[in-house]
Amino acid sequence: MGAKAREYYILFSFLTLLALSSAFQGKKQYKPCKSLVLYFHDIIYNGKNAANATSAIVAAPEGANLTIFAGQFRFGNIAVFDDPITLDNNLHSKPVGRAQGLYVYDTKNTYTAWLGFAFVLNSTDHQGTINFLGADPILAKSRDISIVGGTGDFFMHRGVATIMTDAYEGDVYFRLRVHIKFYECW
Amino acid sequence: MGAKAREYYILFSFLTLLALSSAFQGKKQYKPCKSLVLYFHDIIYNGKNAANATSAIVAAPEGANLTIFAGQFRFGNIAVFDDPITLDNNLHSKPVGRAQGLYVYDTKNTYTAWLGFAFVLNSTDHQGTINFLGADPILAKSRDISIVGGTGDFFMHRGVATIMTDAYEGDVYFRLRVHIKFYECW
Amino acid sequence: MGAKAREYYILFSFLTLLALSSAFQGKKQYKPCKSLVLYFHDIIYNGKNAANATSAIVAAPEGANLTIFAGQFRFGNIAVFDDPITLDNNLHSKPVGRAQGLYVYDTKNTYTAWLGFAFVLNSTDHQGTINFLGADPILAKSRDISIVGGTGDFFMHRGVATIMTDAYEGDVYFRLRVHIKFYECW
Repeated sequence: MGAKAREYYILFSFLTLLALSSAFQGKKQYKPCKSLVLYFHDIIYNGKNAANATSAIVAAPEGANLTIFAGQFRFGNIAVFDDPITLDNNLHSKPVGRAQGLYVYDTKNTYTAWLGFAFVLNSTDHQGTINFLGADPILAKSRDISIVGGTGDFFMHRGVATIMTDAYEGDVYFRLRVHIKFYECW
Repeated sequence: MGAKAREYYILFSFLTLLALSSAFQGKKQYKPCKSLVLYFHDIIYNGKNAANATSAIVAAPEGANLTIFAGQFRFGNIAVFDDPITLDNNLHSKPVGRAQGLYVYDTKNTYTAWLGFAFVLNSTDHQGTINFLGADPILAKSRDISIVGGTGDFFMHRGVATIMTDAYEGDVYFRLRVHIKFYECW
Repeated sequence: MGAKAREYYILFSFLTLLALSSAFQGKKQYKPCKSLVLYFHDIIYNGKNAANATSAIVAAPEGANLTIFAGQFRFGNIAVFDDPITLDNNLHSKPVGRAQGLYVYDTKNTYTAWLGFAFVLNSTDHQGTINFLGADPILAKSRDISIVGGTGDFFMHRGVATIMTDAYEGDVYFRLRVHIKFYECW
C-alpha cells in the first residue's frame, strides 16, 4: 500500500468502527445545540420561617394542613415556589433569575412529584424564559424532564433537563442542579 | 395507446385522483411515526376508600370539601393522581407504568378539565416518560390533547393523544383509553 | 447609468441595508406562519358575584381564605378559570371560545403568575385547541409565554404568545390581549 492508500484505509477503518459502535449502542446520541447548568434553591414555609421561605404548601389532602407535609410521602401536597437561581451551588451567590411555578407530590408510597415551572433568567448572559414540565422521581440520582418552550434568548427552544438533588436538608431546604440541554435552537 | 403509454396513463389518473381526494378532504392527514394505545385507571378518594384510592381532591372552591366533588360540575376541584397504566382495559392487569399529575375541573355548567400529567413507563417494551397537556371536554366521545415532550425512549417526541372515557362509575372510578400518536420522533 | 442599471442599483442598495439592519439587530427575526389576536375576560369570585364570576380561588397559603386574595401579592393563590374569548375587547361580544386552566401567583414581593391553560376555540373561523404555558410578570407592559402544542386547526402548532393587560379593575375583572404567533405550522 502506498502512503495515500494507507491514509484512506485508516480513515475507512475508523469510520467503520464509528458506525459499528453507534449501531451497538442501540440508540442515537444527540448533541445539544446549547446547554447550561444552573442551580435553584427551595426553602419551604413551615410556619416559622416566613422571612426566608421561598415556597409554600397551598393545597393538601383531607386531614392535612399547610405547614407540615402530608403523611403519605406528601401525596396530595401542592407547593408554589419562587426560588433563586444561581450559577453555582451557593445559596448566597448573586441570583441570575428565578424558578417559578409549582410542584405536586403525587405518590403515596414513595417520593415523586409532577413539576410545572419556568426559569425566568435576567442576567448579563441570559434574558428570557425556559418552560419545564415533567415527572420527578425524587429519589432517583438523576431524572429527565421536558423543556417544552422558551422566550427571549430561548425563543422556541426545546430540550431535556437532567435534574439532580444537590442538597437536601429535611423539610426545610433543598437544592436542585439542572443541566439544561437544548436540542432545538432557533 | 401502447403498453407503456397505458401504464403512464393509469399512473397519471391515479395521482390525479389522489390529489383531488386530498384536496376535497380539506386538511392534510399526517401519519404518526410511532403510536401506542394505553389505558389508565383512576379511583378517587371519597373518605372511605383510602386503601384503594389512586387520586385525591386537594383543592376546592369556597364552601366545598375534599371528599365530595364541588357542586357546580366540580368547578374548582383540583385532583392529584398516581394511576396505574395497563395495556388493556383490565384494572387488574400488570401495570406498565404510572400516570401522574393533576386534573383541574374548570367549568360551572358542564364537565371539562384541564390536564397536566406524565406517563412514566417502565416495562420491557418502554422506558421513559411522556408529557401531556390539554383541555378535556369530558363528555365528548373523544378529545385530543397535546403531547409536548418526552424523555428516555420518547426523547424529544411530540404528538397528539386522543382520549376516550372507556368506563365511568360515578364518583368512584373511571378509565381512560389513550391513543398516543407521535408525529415528531427522534 | 441606464434605467435598468439604476433599478438594479436601487434594489441592491435596499438589500444591503436590509442585511445590515438585521445584522445590527443582533437577533434573527422570525415571521409567524400564522397569527391571531384574541381577548379573554376574567371575573374572579369574591363571595358575592357567584352568577357572573368566571374564575375562583381554589388554593391559598396558610391563614388565607378563598374569597380574598392572599396578603403578599397574592403569593400562593391558585385560581381556576373558564373565561370567554372574544375577537375584540368587549366583554359582551359573542365569544369564539373559552380560555380554561389555572394561574398560580408565585411571588411575595411583586405580581407574577405561572400560567397553564388552553384556548378552546369553537367558531366558524377556528375549531381546535391551543396549549399555553409560561411565566407572567403581570406588571410588565407585554410578556411572552410559550405555545407548546395544539389540536384541530392548530394540530401540532408551536409558537409564542405575547400577552398584555388590556384592562384591570382591582380584584374584580381583568382582560388580557393575547397575540398568538405560530412559528411551527403543520
